[in-house]
Amino acid sequence: MIDLRSDTITRPTQKMREAMYKAEVGDDVYGEDPTINQLETLAAEMLGKEAALFVTSGTQGNQIAVLTHCRQGDEIILDEDSHIVYYEGGAISAFAGVQPRTIKSNAGMIDPEKLRLAIRTNDIHFPDTTLICLENTHNRGGGAVIPPSHMKELFAIAQEHNVPIHLDGARLFNAAVALGEPLTAFTQYTTTVQVCLSKGLGAPVGSILAGSKEFIDKARKWRKRLGGGLRQAGILGAAGLIALTEMIDRLAVDHDHAKRLAEGISKHPLLEVVNSVDTNIVLVDITRTGKDSAQFIEELKEVGILAVGFGPTTVRFTTHYDLSSEQIEQAIDKVVSL
Amino acid sequence: MIDLRSDTITRPTQKMREAMYKAEVGDDVYGEDPTINQLETLAAEMLGKEAALFVTSGTQGNQIAVLTHCRQGDEIILDEDSHIVYYEGGAISAFAGVQPRTIKSNAGMIDPEKLRLAIRTNDIHFPDTTLICLENTHNRGGGAVIPPSHMKELFAIAQEHNVPIHLDGARLFNAAVALGEPLTAFTQYTTTVQVCLSKGLGAPVGSILAGSKEFIDKARKWRKRLGGGLRQAGILGAAGLIALTEMIDRLAVDHDHAKRLAEGISKHPLLEVVNSVDTNIVLVDITRTGKDSAQFIEELKEVGILAVGFGPTTVRFTTHYDLSSEQIEQAIDKVVSL
Amino acid sequence: MIDLRSDTITRPTQKMREAMYKAEVGDDVYGEDPTINQLETLAAEMLGKEAALFVTSGTQGNQIAVLTHCRQGDEIILDEDSHIVYYEGGAISAFAGVQPRTIKSNAGMIDPEKLRLAIRTNDIHFPDTTLICLENTHNRGGGAVIPPSHMKELFAIAQEHNVPIHLDGARLFNAAVALGEPLTAFTQYTTTVQVCLSKGLGAPVGSILAGSKEFIDKARKWRKRLGGGLRQAGILGAAGLIALTEMIDRLAVDHDHAKRLAEGISKHPLLEVVNSVDTNIVLVDITRTGKDSAQFIEELKEVGILAVGFGPTTVRFTTHYDLSSEQIEQAIDKVVSL
Amino acid sequence: MIDLRSDTITRPTQKMREAMYKAEVGDDVYGEDPTINQLETLAAEMLGKEAALFVTSGTQGNQIAVLTHCRQGDEIILDEDSHIVYYEGGAISAFAGVQPRTIKSNAGMIDPEKLRLAIRTNDIHFPDTTLICLENTHNRGGGAVIPPSHMKELFAIAQEHNVPIHLDGARLFNAAVALGEPLTAFTQYTTTVQVCLSKGLGAPVGSILAGSKEFIDKARKWRKRLGGGLRQAGILGAAGLIALTEMIDRLAVDHDHAKRLAEGISKHPLLEVVNSVDTNIVLVDITRTGKDSAQFIEELKEVGILAVGFGPTTVRFTTHYDLSSEQIEQAIDKVVSL
Repeated sequence: MIDLRSDTITRPTQKMREAMYKAEVGDDVYGEDPTINQLETLAAEMLGKEAALFVTSGTQGNQIAVLTHCRQGDEIILDEDSHIVYYEGGAISAFAGVQPRTIKSNAGMIDPEKLRLAIRTNDIHFPDTTLICLENTHNRGGGAVIPPSHMKELFAIAQEHNVPIHLDGARLFNAAVALGEPLTAFTQYTTTVQVCLSKGLGAPVGSILAGSKEFIDKARKWRKRLGGGLRQAGILGAAGLIALTEMIDRLAVDHDHAKRLAEGISKHPLLEVVNSVDTNIVLVDITRTGKDSAQFIEELKEVGILAVGFGPTTVRFTTHYDLSSEQIEQAIDKVVSL
Repeated sequence: MIDLRSDTITRPTQKMREAMYKAEVGDDVYGEDPTINQLETLAAEMLGKEAALFVTSGTQGNQIAVLTHCRQGDEIILDEDSHIVYYEGGAISAFAGVQPRTIKSNAGMIDPEKLRLAIRTNDIHFPDTTLICLENTHNRGGGAVIPPSHMKELFAIAQEHNVPIHLDGARLFNAAVALGEPLTAFTQYTTTVQVCLSKGLGAPVGSILAGSKEFIDKARKWRKRLGGGLRQAGILGAAGLIALTEMIDRLAVDHDHAKRLAEGISKHPLLEVVNSVDTNIVLVDITRTGKDSAQFIEELKEVGILAVGFGPTTVRFTTHYDLSSEQIEQAIDKVVSL
Repeated sequence: MIDLRSDTITRPTQKMREAMYKAEVGDDVYGEDPTINQLETLAAEMLGKEAALFVTSGTQGNQIAVLTHCRQGDEIILDEDSHIVYYEGGAISAFAGVQPRTIKSNAGMIDPEKLRLAIRTNDIHFPDTTLICLENTHNRGGGAVIPPSHMKELFAIAQEHNVPIHLDGARLFNAAVALGEPLTAFTQYTTTVQVCLSKGLGAPVGSILAGSKEFIDKARKWRKRLGGGLRQAGILGAAGLIALTEMIDRLAVDHDHAKRLAEGISKHPLLEVVNSVDTNIVLVDITRTGKDSAQFIEELKEVGILAVGFGPTTVRFTTHYDLSSEQIEQAIDKVVSL
Repeated sequence: MIDLRSDTITRPTQKMREAMYKAEVGDDVYGEDPTINQLETLAAEMLGKEAALFVTSGTQGNQIAVLTHCRQGDEIILDEDSHIVYYEGGAISAFAGVQPRTIKSNAGMIDPEKLRLAIRTNDIHFPDTTLICLENTHNRGGGAVIPPSHMKELFAIAQEHNVPIHLDGARLFNAAVALGEPLTAFTQYTTTVQVCLSKGLGAPVGSILAGSKEFIDKARKWRKRLGGGLRQAGILGAAGLIALTEMIDRLAVDHDHAKRLAEGISKHPLLEVVNSVDTNIVLVDITRTGKDSAQFIEELKEVGILAVGFGPTTVRFTTHYDLSSEQIEQAIDKVVSL
């Protein structure tokens, strides 16, 4: 099986396994896990924020951000296809009690004028707008990169209205590598940011939430309430350190693989690649095959390829660390021969 | 001052005042207010539902509906300009803990295909879709009427997916009068419905929530939690009974007034009526005046007219019981002379 | 039937009906109801607070107080028999998302040392204590009065810890009349207070929430979310004004009636009055009758008396405006002859 | 330093490290982590339940249980010193929106009659009672064991009222070892149960939530919302498997250590052991030293002992895997010489 479902399926590298085996650990609820402390310090530095917090998933990092920035009865602005509103089980409303106000974006790029209009004015009928969320790269936009210049423009509007910006940067490393920019080129235009150590970087578990020291202090209590306060978390932290120090640059290979895959798939007369393939995701419209995604995915499976549905007639292929160039070529052959 | 801000400003009629003065009352928390019991029975019958509940506002009726149909973590579908999501302070997320999934509608008419796609499939990342809300007439659509045939189509989709439909019918009486249909022509395609006794019908306070007996039994406890369990509510109920029995047909006059107003305002070279004026609301685009709504409303005030902003360059005028035909003509003269 | 179930069953007086009939009204959501404005100004003054808000019930006033003082994840301290935790459907947790920490009180009097210990220290495992609630008179304590001196002591502890105190004063008027003190003798030791215009004062509907101007501004938006933003609320406000200006002193009669009732009932060899009968409530332990409350209440009903259960073997009798001295004597005769 | 603060500080054993190093893993969000699947199957079997779910902490397991059993507006019954209400940041109210109704227990043993009275009857003022929580062993009761016979009695009452029982069994292994009973001797009287793999069993991270298959299916989605859906969780699962298969019996050593420690500390004339020392926890009242817990803990630290405060004049000592018999004797010498 060539598994192109998601970069979340990557298994920890040998080096990560060794680091976990030897990890120095302590009780992180008491703040005494040296590996976690080292990871949080490094992550904060790389992200250009005062402080960072290890969390067990991107979803947890995003939920803690919303819980810490907002209170129930507030409204937050995000694009209608963002992970937070699309894939997190409605948790922002269930837990933080906030109402999302969604904008249709162009692969994660929100029209600044629409953003400006979406921020609520002062009226007894309106909730207060207390957060804007962006996602970079943008999953449902096909791993599209939002350039720092666009983030700058949105951040200026947010600051005018005194509203913080949280960045769901589950795949921010892909954006940075794609543009050849440091993480801070993006995070300078955010108040807080979440990045995943799993996905492309290959750590088995974990994400980082970063922001001001005051923000992270409050976030820590919300993490505890969510059950994300771990004990000897340094086991996971050790893999996270490898992810941050050795696994970023290699994302370029995944991006090359995705471009090659898109090119190959495009040869199929009934398949159309519909995204710009900025990073490691390829979105394919299968309408002309006359099948729906569920059927098409089943057929792919029969020839040894795993992918996921992305709507009734769209299929997503994702490249990652556990795939070789040979497998990409094999995948192309199999898809094209369908 | 000619007050065209809203039909909510109508004062109780003389007959209502007399009815309130003489109202037979009891403790409604104990179910012993005869006037409320009579009102709820009549309202249920008129709306074609098993049972009805007196609530203190349209917002309260809508919130109770969501709290009763859903639980936290669920998702509900509504159009992005619906009152529930636009004007109720984010309360559905704050109290019911549900996430709205919004669709751009055509003055309240939701594309059936978009509705079908918005209902969530079974996936661990997705909330369950447990409610669809419609609004008829549609306030931000300029009092537009959704015809029963359209509601029928949406209701069929909802039923296929076993999802209830709640109708925010704050101004459903206007829709019924505009089409010359009974209320049940609309409510037959809903699971529950809320209608306002204030607004066009002129009662000082109150709305009705109607549905199955089982639904209303549960709704009653949510009303109590919201602080809407009143004692001698029959005072208000007495006015509500007049509203339901004597004030519906006269809405036709408000509709005529709105059409006349729209016609008059259209004569102004820089003002454009942008809605279909199905009922008692006129939406005017003021872009060509070069002013924003706040400025324009201020100028209207100076010549003795009150209206409300409906976005940066749109102004809403609403006709109602407390306005005579003479006042409508005067209003036209004043607006046109601006 | 002699109805001793609750003072909530009182019907509006003739004077109230006349005031409601003539009430000058406006749209209170716009802040334009002159009667409500007058009521809120008077109530704030009488309660010694900067501002006041008309709400539709005591429950609504209490819920708004909690929503305004706290956010989800906070903890509030109250006695385990307080109305807020016992009779409001769990709404403080459902809506405000706060966890009650309950203390067993002596008829509403909380041991200051227990209060001090219940306020949380700073620890990642603990919620923040952001509110203390008192209730005066104390319903489940049998209408017991908490003297101002005791409130002063608790308020000092609260202030030391920078925690506000909200007073559920649904029957604060009874406490004031019982001690011959002004309302401010009590409210000076509270941050916010809720008092009911219905119950002993006889208004058909309504309560008042009072506090600082800033607090009431925020409270107003929470009232709107709860559906408590009314239109021509002045109808109810007119009765509220009579309640505040003419109905307070007469509570002394209810208190005399309750004392007389307690005295009379005590003559029954198997019934024991178990509260101090400070105001208008008499709690009777029926254990020695060998019946449970449900049975006993049924027997009372058969001889023409209505009362309510207050636990498995306790029955509550409440005196109020709609009961004459003759009825009290008749009630005694009937109870004693059981 | 001899660290007696908590059994949560234990570091993974060499065997656990080896198991984690070699762990076979997959993406657990897709249900494809073989180690987690094996762990969940084994845990369900040992706990006598149909299904089990790996969660990242005891708090997370408890919160998911409440979210799955209840909805907002419900009430749950637990003892006032239970971990869920005392140490989880008010999360049951913040997230699940439920109101705790607390009972004072005798080291976790709840008087059956009090339980019966605490279950709400059907009344519009009351929330529904939808869960009862027990904790065994009971942390604030000093690691006290609740015998199965007592749980049986409470479970019978719960079943009569159709209310499920959730057991916070963070230290249920200690209870089982102390009584020489299998886990099922306890869990047969529960609907759902949470047990910790960290604490006494020494796994670095993780707990198990177990119940019916239907319950666990729903719980899985709540875990995702909380951010507890992990990717290659088998790393942690591998340590959990060692915990369940090799680390239970050895808890007897911790219990012996605690008894020895209690005996030793009792020799100090001003210190009084106040719990029954059923398992691995010793509670010491320091009142007679004239110091408060903060001071006393500081003095302990100076002589090389770490413990935690458990109220103003109580200190908790906990034994665990990382402590040898020699260290226990040294600790006794140091405490006694204070």
